[in-house]
Amino acid sequence: MGYSFRNDYSSIAIKEVIDKLIECSNEQNIGYGEDVHTLNAKRLIKEKIKRDSDIYFIAGGTITNMIAIGSVLKPYEAVIACDSGHINVHETGAIEGLGHKILYCKNIDGKINISGIDEIIKTHTDHHMVKPRMVYISNSTEVGSVYNLIELKEIYDYCKKNNLYLYLDGARLASALAASDITFSDYGKYTDMFYIGGTKCGSYFGEALVINNDELKKEFNYYIKHFGGMIAKGFVTSIPFEVLMEGNRYIEIGKKENECANLLVEELTKLGLKFYSKSVTNQVFVILPNRILEELYKDFAYEYWIKGETESVIRFVTSFTTEKKHVLELVSRIKELI
Amino acid sequence: MGYSFRNDYSSIAIKEVIDKLIECSNEQNIGYGEDVHTLNAKRLIKEKIKRDSDIYFIAGGTITNMIAIGSVLKPYEAVIACDSGHINVHETGAIEGLGHKILYCKNIDGKINISGIDEIIKTHTDHHMVKPRMVYISNSTEVGSVYNLIELKEIYDYCKKNNLYLYLDGARLASALAASDITFSDYGKYTDMFYIGGTKCGSYFGEALVINNDELKKEFNYYIKHFGGMIAKGFVTSIPFEVLMEGNRYIEIGKKENECANLLVEELTKLGLKFYSKSVTNQVFVILPNRILEELYKDFAYEYWIKGETESVIRFVTSFTTEKKHVLELVSRIKELI
Amino acid sequence: MGYSFRNDYSSIAIKEVIDKLIECSNEQNIGYGEDVHTLNAKRLIKEKIKRDSDIYFIAGGTITNMIAIGSVLKPYEAVIACDSGHINVHETGAIEGLGHKILYCKNIDGKINISGIDEIIKTHTDHHMVKPRMVYISNSTEVGSVYNLIELKEIYDYCKKNNLYLYLDGARLASALAASDITFSDYGKYTDMFYIGGTKCGSYFGEALVINNDELKKEFNYYIKHFGGMIAKGFVTSIPFEVLMEGNRYIEIGKKENECANLLVEELTKLGLKFYSKSVTNQVFVILPNRILEELYKDFAYEYWIKGETESVIRFVTSFTTEKKHVLELVSRIKELI
Amino acid sequence: MGYSFRNDYSSIAIKEVIDKLIECSNEQNIGYGEDVHTLNAKRLIKEKIKRDSDIYFIAGGTITNMIAIGSVLKPYEAVIACDSGHINVHETGAIEGLGHKILYCKNIDGKINISGIDEIIKTHTDHHMVKPRMVYISNSTEVGSVYNLIELKEIYDYCKKNNLYLYLDGARLASALAASDITFSDYGKYTDMFYIGGTKCGSYFGEALVINNDELKKEFNYYIKHFGGMIAKGFVTSIPFEVLMEGNRYIEIGKKENECANLLVEELTKLGLKFYSKSVTNQVFVILPNRILEELYKDFAYEYWIKGETESVIRFVTSFTTEKKHVLELVSRIKELI
Repeated sequence: MGYSFRNDYSSIAIKEVIDKLIECSNEQNIGYGEDVHTLNAKRLIKEKIKRDSDIYFIAGGTITNMIAIGSVLKPYEAVIACDSGHINVHETGAIEGLGHKILYCKNIDGKINISGIDEIIKTHTDHHMVKPRMVYISNSTEVGSVYNLIELKEIYDYCKKNNLYLYLDGARLASALAASDITFSDYGKYTDMFYIGGTKCGSYFGEALVINNDELKKEFNYYIKHFGGMIAKGFVTSIPFEVLMEGNRYIEIGKKENECANLLVEELTKLGLKFYSKSVTNQVFVILPNRILEELYKDFAYEYWIKGETESVIRFVTSFTTEKKHVLELVSRIKELI
Repeated sequence: MGYSFRNDYSSIAIKEVIDKLIECSNEQNIGYGEDVHTLNAKRLIKEKIKRDSDIYFIAGGTITNMIAIGSVLKPYEAVIACDSGHINVHETGAIEGLGHKILYCKNIDGKINISGIDEIIKTHTDHHMVKPRMVYISNSTEVGSVYNLIELKEIYDYCKKNNLYLYLDGARLASALAASDITFSDYGKYTDMFYIGGTKCGSYFGEALVINNDELKKEFNYYIKHFGGMIAKGFVTSIPFEVLMEGNRYIEIGKKENECANLLVEELTKLGLKFYSKSVTNQVFVILPNRILEELYKDFAYEYWIKGETESVIRFVTSFTTEKKHVLELVSRIKELI
Repeated sequence: MGYSFRNDYSSIAIKEVIDKLIECSNEQNIGYGEDVHTLNAKRLIKEKIKRDSDIYFIAGGTITNMIAIGSVLKPYEAVIACDSGHINVHETGAIEGLGHKILYCKNIDGKINISGIDEIIKTHTDHHMVKPRMVYISNSTEVGSVYNLIELKEIYDYCKKNNLYLYLDGARLASALAASDITFSDYGKYTDMFYIGGTKCGSYFGEALVINNDELKKEFNYYIKHFGGMIAKGFVTSIPFEVLMEGNRYIEIGKKENECANLLVEELTKLGLKFYSKSVTNQVFVILPNRILEELYKDFAYEYWIKGETESVIRFVTSFTTEKKHVLELVSRIKELI
Repeated sequence: MGYSFRNDYSSIAIKEVIDKLIECSNEQNIGYGEDVHTLNAKRLIKEKIKRDSDIYFIAGGTITNMIAIGSVLKPYEAVIACDSGHINVHETGAIEGLGHKILYCKNIDGKINISGIDEIIKTHTDHHMVKPRMVYISNSTEVGSVYNLIELKEIYDYCKKNNLYLYLDGARLASALAASDITFSDYGKYTDMFYIGGTKCGSYFGEALVINNDELKKEFNYYIKHFGGMIAKGFVTSIPFEVLMEGNRYIEIGKKENECANLLVEELTKLGLKFYSKSVTNQVFVILPNRILEELYKDFAYEYWIKGETESVIRFVTSFTTEKKHVLELVSRIKELI
C-alpha cells in the first residue's frame, strides 16, 4: 500500500505536538482542565479570537457537538442544519439521542442558506411543533466548500433577529481559515459557539469548544461531565492546542493541506475529470470510472462517497502529512489507469 | 509545590507508551478502530483474558460506563450499584441522562453485597417499578478496597440466577489485579462486561471495554457512535494498550502503586493515625487534624474526601510516577507537622 | 357561532358511550387495565382483527405513538415516515424526545411509498448513521387520503424483507375503514402494531394499541408506565371501546363522517372550487379566497392549513355529530360569500 | 365479591361529574384546552388559591409529575424526594427516563424533612455530581400522613434560601385538604408548582397542574405536548374540575373519605390491631395475620403493602363511594375472622 488519501485522521499528530508531549511527560498536572497547559491554551485562543470567551477541550467532534447543542436546547427545541450536515447524517442520531429534533433544509454546494432557514422558521410557529432555537453550520463543509465572511455575517444577523443561536462546527477549521476570508476573531464575533478542530488539524485528538455568548456559559462543566465528555487528564487534550495556537501554525497546517488539494484539483481537471463539488479545501470529490478503482486502491487509499454503476464519486483528502509529490504520484497513477 | 498525591491522573503516561507513540508517529492508519494497532491490542487482551471477547477502546471512564450500561438496558430497566458507586455519585447523572435509574444499596467497605442486591430484586417485582437488569461493581472500589475471587464469583452466580448482567468498572484494574486474587481470565469468565482502565493505569487516556457475553455484542459500534464515544483516530487509543498489555507490565504498574500505598499505610499507622477505609490498593484515606492540612499542602498535594470540623478524611493516591522516597518524604512531613 | 367544522374532537362522545358510562357509574373496578370492561373490549377487538394480539388502552394519540415506537427501537435505531407524517411534524419532537431520529421521505398525496423508503434503506448502511428499523404510516393520512389493501401489503412485504417493523397510526381509523378496502383483520395481518383511534372516532378520549407481532409484546406494561401512559382507571379508557366495537358501530361512524365530507367535496366542486388534496375521508382541504374567510368563520368554524396571500387552504372536518344539513348550510354560505 | 377497599380509583366519578358530562354532551368545543370549560375551571381554581397561577389539565399523575419536573430541570439537575416518594418508587423510572436523577433521603412517617434535604445539598457541591434544583413532596403522602402548614412553610423557606423549587404532588389533595391546616391558598403561596388530583378525588381522570412561580410558566404548552401529555379534547379533562371546584365540594369529598378511614382506624384499634403508619387520611395500613387474609378478600378487596411470613401490612383505602356501613361491615368481618 502506498500513500493514503482516505482521510485527514490517519496520522497521530504533527511533530511539534509530539515533541511537546515528550517535553511535558515528567510533569504532574492538576486534573479536569484546571492545569497550566489548559490555562495557557485558553489564553492563546482568546488572543486569536480577541474575546473573553469560555473555552473547553473535549475528546472528539461528535461529543463536542452533543455538548454544545445539548447545553443550549430545551427539550422541545430544535436545531436547524442543512440536509448534508454532519449532525444530521453522520452522527448515528447522537443529537436526537439527547432528545432534540434536527430540522433540515436543502444545502447548496454543502452550505445552508437563509431562505431555507427562513422557511423552517415561518412554518414552526406553535406548540404542536418543535421550536427552532439554534442554527448549525460547519466550516469547511462536508463537501469541501467554505462560507465566506459575508455569508457568515448574514446567517448570524438572521439568527440574532430571529432568536436563534448560531453554532459552528470547526472540525476542519484550519483548512477553512486558510481558504476563506473569515478570521479567528470573526468566529468570535459572528457565532454564539464554535469549535476549533484538533483531531483533523494536527492534534492526536481533541477539539476546543469556544463559547462566545455569555448566556450560554453558565455551569458548563456540568454539561460536559453529564454528557460524558469530561477528560480526567485535561492537559493531554490542551497541550496540543498550546502548540497549534502558536503564531500562525494552525492556519499554516490548513494552508499546506489546501495547496495539496488545490494542486490535485488542477491536475485532475487537466485530465478532463469532473468533480462532485467545488472544493477549495482539503477534501476533493472527483468522479472516476469504476473500472480503475480497484487497481488505484492498491497504491493510493481513498474513500467511496457515492457508488455508481459505471462511475463513482471518490473522496481524496489531504492532511498535514501530505506533500506535493504524493499528489503528483496519485495524479500520475490515475493518468496511467485511465 | 512538591510531589502531588492528589490522584493517579496527573502525569501523561508511562515512558514506554510515549516511546511507542513516537515510534508510530510517521504511520498512516485506518480510522475508527480498524487499524493494526487496535487489532494487535485486542489480540493481546484476548490472550490475557483467554476468551474471544469483543473489545472496544473508548476515551474515558464515564463515557465507557454510559456506553456499557446504555447498550444493555431497555428504557424501563435499572442498574444496581452500591451507594458509593462511581456511577451513582460522581458522574453528574450521566446514567440517568440515558434514561436509567440506578438502584443502590449500602456498601460495606466500599463493596456491594449479595443481601443488598437481593433486597432490591425482591422488592422490584411489577411494572409500577423499574426492572433491575444489571449489577455494577468496580475493582478496585472508590475507597481502595478490592473484591476477591470468591466474592466476584458469588455476585456473578447470583446475577446469572436472577437474570442480571454483571458489569465491572476497571478504572483502576491494574491496582486491583495486583492486590486481589482475581486474574485477567477471571474477569473474562465472571463478568458479562468489564473495562480495563488506561487513564489511571499508565496511558495518556482511554479504556478498553471488554464484552464477554455474546448476547451483548451485537451492533455495538452503533452504540459507541450514538452515545458520542467513537474516536476517529482509534489507534491513538489502542497504541497505549499494545504497550500496557505486553507481558506483565499492566500488573507491574499496579503492583508498584500498591507497594507505595501500602508503605504509606504502614508508616502512617506507626504515627498512630486512623484510616477511613481498609485500602489495599493505591488510594489511601487517612484521618488528619485540620490544623496541619494547609501547611502540608504546600509540599504535598492531596484531596479532601470528607471535611470535618477538627479533623478530615484526606485521600493520598499513588501512581506510576510515585517512588518510595516520595512516600517517605510525605510521611516525614506529616510527622513534623503533627 | 354556528356549526364547527374545525376538527373531529370538538364533542365529548357518541350518545351510546355516554349511556354506557352512566350505566357503569356505580361499579367498582380493578385498576390499571385488569378490569372486566378492559377484558371485554380486548375480546371484541380480537374478534374483529381475528388475531390473538395484545391490546392496551392509552389516553391519547401522541403518547400512544411514543409508547409504540419507543418500545421497539434501540437508542441508535430510527423510524421512517413521510415528510407530512404526524410524528414528524405535529408532535413537538416527542419521538426525538425519546432519543430516536425520524428519517423521512417525500409524501405522494399524503402517503409514503416504497421507493422513498428504499432510498433511505440503501443509504443507511453503517454505524456512522442511524439504523432504520420501523416504518410509520397513518390511515387515513394527514390530508384525508387512504392507503388501499394492495399498498398496505406492498409496504408490509417490503418491511418484512428489510428487517423493518410496520406501525400504523389509526387516529382516524374509523374513517379509513369506511373509505378503504382494508378490513380490521387486514390491519391485524399486515402491520406489526397499529392503533384504533378513539378520541377522533366517537370516544371522549383513548386509543387502543394493538400489538400483532409476538416479538414486540414482552413486558409492554413496563413501557406504558415508564413513558407516562398508564391510566389508573383503565376501565374509563376501555368502556368506550366496548361500545365502539359492538357490531359495525365503529365503521358506521366513519361512514357517516365520510358521507358528509364527500357531499361537501361534491358541492364545493360544483362551485368550481379547487382542492389541496384528493380526500376520500372526513377531512376536506379546499382552496378559498381570503376575502370571504373572516365572514365565513362567523357562521362556520374551520382551520387554516396553509395561509396564502390571496387565497388559502382551509380544512373542514366532519365528525360523528355532523349531519348533511350542516354541510349544505356551509356550502350555501360559501356560495353566498363567493 | 363485596365492597372493595383496594384503592380510590375503582369507580368512574362522582354523580355530579357524570351529570355535567351529560349536560355538555351536545356541545362543540375548541380543542387543546382553549375552550370555555377549561377557562372556567381555571378561574375557579385561581379563586381558591387566590393567585394568578397558570393551570393545565393533564391526563394522569405520572405524566403530570414528568411534565412538571421535566419542564424545570436542566439535564444535569436533580430532584430531591424522600425514599418512599411516588416518583422514586412507583413510576417505573419515568423521571429518570427524562434524564434526571432523583436524590432521596429517609422519610419520617412518609414525609421528607429539612435535615435530610440539607445533607443532600451540603454533599452536592461540584460538577462531578448532579445539581439538586427541586424538592418533591406529596400531600397526603404514600402512607396516609400529611404535612401541616408549619412543615410546608419550613420546607418552602429552605427551598427559597437554597435555590430550589418546591413541587407538591396532590394526587390525594382532597384528602389532605380535609386532614391538614394547609388551605388552597397556602398551596398557591408555599409551592412553586403543585397539582390538584382529579383521578383519586372524584373525577374519571385528570389532574390540574398549577404553576405559581412566574419563572416556570414560559412556553409550558410546548413541554406538555413534547412529553406526550397534551389532550385533544381538553374540555373532557377540565369539565370535572368545573364540578369539583364548585363551593366546598372538593374538600367535602376528602372529608367524607377521611371520616370513613378514621372510623376504620378507631374500630380496628378497638380490636387491638397495630398500624404500619399513623394515617389521618383515606389510606389505612394495618397489620393483619396472614391466616385470615384469603378469607377476608372474598368479601372485601384490599391490597398487600408488605407481605410478611405470619402477618402482613394491608392497605384499605376509602373513596367517594365509601359509606360508614361499608367500614362497619369490614370491621365486623375482620372481628369474626380473628
